[in-house]
Amino acid sequence: MTNRLRGVIAPVLTPFDDRLEPDVGRFIAHSRWLVDRHAGLAIFGTNSEAASLSVAERLALTDALLEGGVPAAKLMPGTGACALPDAVALTRHASRIDAAGVLVLPPFYFKGVSDDGVFAYYAEIIERVGSGCAPLYLYHIPQMSQVPITLGLIERLLKRYPGVIAGAKDSSGDWRNAKAMIDHFAAAGFDVFPASESLLSQAMPIGGAGCISATVNMNPVGIHRVFQGWQSAETPALQAKADAVRKIFQATPMIPAMKHVVSHFSGHASWRTVRPPLVALDEAAGRDVLAQLDAAGFDMPNYPR
Amino acid sequence: MTNRLRGVIAPVLTPFDDRLEPDVGRFIAHSRWLVDRHAGLAIFGTNSEAASLSVAERLALTDALLEGGVPAAKLMPGTGACALPDAVALTRHASRIDAAGVLVLPPFYFKGVSDDGVFAYYAEIIERVGSGCAPLYLYHIPQMSQVPITLGLIERLLKRYPGVIAGAKDSSGDWRNAKAMIDHFAAAGFDVFPASESLLSQAMPIGGAGCISATVNMNPVGIHRVFQGWQSAETPALQAKADAVRKIFQATPMIPAMKHVVSHFSGHASWRTVRPPLVALDEAAGRDVLAQLDAAGFDMPNYPR
Repeated sequence: MTNRLRGVIAPVLTPFDDRLEPDVGRFIAHSRWLVDRHAGLAIFGTNSEAASLSVAERLALTDALLEGGVPAAKLMPGTGACALPDAVALTRHASRIDAAGVLVLPPFYFKGVSDDGVFAYYAEIIERVGSGCAPLYLYHIPQMSQVPITLGLIERLLKRYPGVIAGAKDSSGDWRNAKAMIDHFAAAGFDVFPASESLLSQAMPIGGAGCISATVNMNPVGIHRVFQGWQSAETPALQAKADAVRKIFQATPMIPAMKHVVSHFSGHASWRTVRPPLVALDEAAGRDVLAQLDAAGFDMPNYPR
Repeated sequence: MTNRLRGVIAPVLTPFDDRLEPDVGRFIAHSRWLVDRHAGLAIFGTNSEAASLSVAERLALTDALLEGGVPAAKLMPGTGACALPDAVALTRHASRIDAAGVLVLPPFYFKGVSDDGVFAYYAEIIERVGSGCAPLYLYHIPQMSQVPITLGLIERLLKRYPGVIAGAKDSSGDWRNAKAMIDHFAAAGFDVFPASESLLSQAMPIGGAGCISATVNMNPVGIHRVFQGWQSAETPALQAKADAVRKIFQATPMIPAMKHVVSHFSGHASWRTVRPPLVALDEAAGRDVLAQLDAAGFDMPNYPR
């Protein structure tokens, strides 16, 4: 359980070209820009539009990152899927390449399922992948999955698979829930990542592991400063500065807005492309976001053009 | 637009073996039993646990049915998926084998998406599959997908792709919605299938096309009688009889309960198997369902053992 991925992690945006195909070159470039700024890479998270990618695309993009020089020790691929065979194939591949971890959504089509059913899903993945299974992080995002990761489920999984269950991403946005996860399980080596940097200065003092936040794609340096500085007197000022950027994105459809901003700083219009059912930001909305960011002094320094 | 699949259609249950693998032989046998009782086959619907099947499994099961002598003209495979490439691959395959239609879920991971985004998803599928695209039925099941098929969306799709958009399954359970779909679009050749046989005698007189209902897996003969007899004086009695069976299943977790009942009539315990996140019925609940069905005079005559 050493060498765990902690700190500031980006659910990496997935660039598409004009034909809606993954743009491998820009994916590698964006990932390297993030790694160079101390970010871990939760490729294939919600903000990666992972649900809109096929299994084959996710495997190919992972291999491309490794070939592009991104270390597996920086990767926490999202490997959850509605279909067990897909989740197993993705988790097995991530384990084989020695990814730092896997972030696993519960199956999200059926609603009102029981903890027994969700437990069985995670258990099957772990059993089928076998002894080399990568550290497994549970993905709690009830507003999308509609299937929560309850405290009771974590307790059962930790008890049954203590060597594999490594933590959780809490995307509920509910600080009480993140706090409860930390309070109950952090002492057992369970790493809790809230999904917003705005919770860093609350989470770190009580045993949080960092954050896995969409806006790390935009502001890795500012967010890393908050993480590094959480014990310093500077924290409130650093936190406020990072929060100001996050707030601008939170008032928008975040994925299209972030892609619009990357397109601006990279100079590549195709960065704005999203796969359906998402819709790209229109020109006016894009200009508005950029103007707000500019007023807040935001920049993406040295972003690859 | 001739030879449309109408009438009584089953979202075909998918049998698994004890290792959670699809049981191809029992899938064929169950499908043939249904076809012999006038049912069309909406393989890979919600009640087929389609979300729990990989794309490769769905393709292989479709091919196995054809090899097993089930006519493509009886098939309306579910080909929706969160990822566009998956939906395209499945729809292309169904079109190539001359399936009677495809039943296409909207992408269901992202919530709160716009009609523009859902329109773009369907448009991409239709454009990519090209001129031989099978008749496409829109799948409205907001309680699972959380992404509705609105009347406005249907209107836009019908206008843009009049030769492809063929109808909808309405699983909302809201008669007013099914009625509105029929009232607005049936005259344009848009076939609306409510998801319950309990709506047959209301839907048929105003221009409905039949039903695509879970319990067709259990009671194809009784439901076909309602469909056939909707203009006869017998309708209320036939409808009441079919409704009595449906009510028993509706009071249970339907998929596990239906599988439990098939396991009873087929004599194969493995029919009870469901993939996670679903959970098989326990013995007591199974006995209870069977006892209620027995009291209602229910049978699955000549079910293959």
